Amino acid sequence: MTPQLGGVPGFRDLLPLEAEILREAQESLLAEMRRWGYRHVITPLVENMDVLDVGLGVEQRRRLFKFTDGRVVAGKLRSAALPLRLCYSGPVLSTDEGRFQQRRETYQVGAELIGASGPVADAEVIALAARCMEATGIRRYQIDVGHAEFFHGIMDAVKLPDEVKAAVRDALVARDFVALESLLEGTPLKSAEHELLLRFPALRGGPEILDAAGGLVRNRRSEAALSELGRVRELLVAHGIGDVVVLDLGAIRDFDYYTGVIFEGYGPDFGRPIAQGGRYDALLARFGRPAPATGFMIQLDLVSEMLTRAPRPPALPRLDAALAWSESGLGTALRLGSTLRLFGMRAVVDTQPRSPAEAQAWWRAIGAANLVYCRSEASVSWSSGGQRARSLPPEQVAGRLAGGVA
Amino acid sequence: MTPQLGGVPGFRDLLPLEAEILREAQESLLAEMRRWGYRHVITPLVENMDVLDVGLGVEQRRRLFKFTDGRVVAGKLRSAALPLRLCYSGPVLSTDEGRFQQRRETYQVGAELIGASGPVADAEVIALAARCMEATGIRRYQIDVGHAEFFHGIMDAVKLPDEVKAAVRDALVARDFVALESLLEGTPLKSAEHELLLRFPALRGGPEILDAAGGLVRNRRSEAALSELGRVRELLVAHGIGDVVVLDLGAIRDFDYYTGVIFEGYGPDFGRPIAQGGRYDALLARFGRPAPATGFMIQLDLVSEMLTRAPRPPALPRLDAALAWSESGLGTALRLGSTLRLFGMRAVVDTQPRSPAEAQAWWRAIGAANLVYCRSEASVSWSSGGQRARSLPPEQVAGRLAGGVA
Repeated sequence: MTPQLGGVPGFRDLLPLEAEILREAQESLLAEMRRWGYRHVITPLVENMDVLDVGLGVEQRRRLFKFTDGRVVAGKLRSAALPLRLCYSGPVLSTDEGRFQQRRETYQVGAELIGASGPVADAEVIALAARCMEATGIRRYQIDVGHAEFFHGIMDAVKLPDEVKAAVRDALVARDFVALESLLEGTPLKSAEHELLLRFPALRGGPEILDAAGGLVRNRRSEAALSELGRVRELLVAHGIGDVVVLDLGAIRDFDYYTGVIFEGYGPDFGRPIAQGGRYDALLARFGRPAPATGFMIQLDLVSEMLTRAPRPPALPRLDAALAWSESGLGTALRLGSTLRLFGMRAVVDTQPRSPAEAQAWWRAIGAANLVYCRSEASVSWSSGGQRARSLPPEQVAGRLAGGVA
Repeated sequence: MTPQLGGVPGFRDLLPLEAEILREAQESLLAEMRRWGYRHVITPLVENMDVLDVGLGVEQRRRLFKFTDGRVVAGKLRSAALPLRLCYSGPVLSTDEGRFQQRRETYQVGAELIGASGPVADAEVIALAARCMEATGIRRYQIDVGHAEFFHGIMDAVKLPDEVKAAVRDALVARDFVALESLLEGTPLKSAEHELLLRFPALRGGPEILDAAGGLVRNRRSEAALSELGRVRELLVAHGIGDVVVLDLGAIRDFDYYTGVIFEGYGPDFGRPIAQGGRYDALLARFGRPAPATGFMIQLDLVSEMLTRAPRPPALPRLDAALAWSESGLGTALRLGSTLRLFGMRAVVDTQPRSPAEAQAWWRAIGAANLVYCRSEASVSWSSGGQRARSLPPEQVAGRLAGGVA
């Protein structure tokens, strides 16, 4: 079926599979978001750099860029009835290290639910993130769901100097348990609290960990977080995604930004998260419109990388027809090209005349399903993979190809 | 049919129609380009600023950005069999005036045919540009086609100091005929050449202007340009777009960049060009891979603006279903939402419980085609525009809505 390339470099060898995959994933994600009622907004790419001086961390900046658009915040969003469901996509310039020369592009698709608080809204964005991961074509995935307030409650409750709390937090973020252990040994903590902080990163699993964690904490913030997380989990079961959810109370992320339920989506390799999101009820006030909000973004680069490395990576869509011509067949080739495209087929017309033998070589190089060699106004020769060439009138080609291609 | 908004701000009022139109136009354009065998490449947005120091003009920079990607030029393109057909899309940062703070984003979709010279290749990209303009939904459009060499030939032939030639060219670009006239009065030009330069901007119309122009010039460069342009026009007729082509020999564009056939596509208002392109055979050598090339870009912002201002602007795609719920109906609402989305419908599940009357107000605010009010596990109430609400089992809703929506 597929013509062999025979070592001649052609489209298939040269053009990035990743680019096609990335574009298709982007479209699938936006289509899924629209099915959930999220409306597409154009994102203000430039602004990602202009918010550097607002004093935000890297993750905040990364997720923030869309709100800095004057159109969204000062205009539309300020006067909008809430909740608003927005989605966006596009390249994002990261300015890691704050050095101008170190800019790097990443491609993201994101969704934000603005103006709704509570577990129903939290569960909606997590379920949407899960359906988005499915929509990309990633086969096995998992969503880790945690809660920023669980950790805040613990840190409120323990009696430690602020600088030790900061060091404990850093050790937990880095999952450096040796450092954590020695930090805690130097403090006057009661052994129960000591134990709690050491066990904290291991609080990961099914709904049973909510009870286990409930037995360890004695403060209202953490207890409220556990209760809310339990409700979100129930709703995720109702959404039909209970089996991909893992509760993770030990996840520490950018807690100056996140204020409630947080989550991360992982593909089959469980490396870097493909999706990241959570509730950030305090952020929009900085832009003059206080409102609860939750949302997430998907890193398209990681999706593309993962799909490309899959055992059976997606195939590049192929050309349906290569239209070659001798001098007297050019007009026929141009008309046939138009007709085939009207039928929705992908057809390339050659840019130079060729002999029948040269046309065969060109056909193999570009890897199209069919070769149509246009000799004259009245006759063309049609070859498809493995079959003998047949002569036929040009007006019959479109129908034959549509039949063969379909 | 359409529920009235009744002054309540909702999706329709608030979210930019332009964003949806822009996105749909972008997809239509890329789909058309793929039907012509152009492969999508990811564009290196960042690089647009990094080439500032190569010493290029604004138009060159604008069209150049894609070639500065290391992947395309140094890697893929360097070793690629030619011709290559590439397309790309995305935001472009313009750094007008070279001032960092003056960055501005525009959205472009472009196509480039690299490694093919001659009228067949020129006609291909012009015909593709025409089909792209159709694909956006613009109803009436026109493509002006000219040739950079026609003007070069004239300027070679006239005996004028270089600085006067530059002034003549500036006057022609600005269409400042008073300045042109006084410039020429101060020169020792013979009256035929004087006459030629003054008539030059008026050489615009059908194929008859090629003969008219041929009668005015006596230099090989201009004559070769006229002959090539005539052949391109014949091929455009064969492509089926002869009726939208206007020949324009008086068009002066960035001629340090363009080396052959040039063109611009205009929508019905004939203001700024929506599509711009042409042959630039000298450019790729600067990147270490000399090759003839032609291509164009379409300004999506202008397309979106034009479609939005049209007498009948495209309608925003609407939500198919608004799913409201009382406390005991939430699980039903979540499941129904999943089912409707599996059917490809756009369904929003509310984030808070509502009474039936509140649900009606919410429905009107978000402007969905149908309201499904979920009271319990066993019963929902379905309303669609203008009809009485009906109670039915949840499992019947998807079928009814699919029937009503389709």
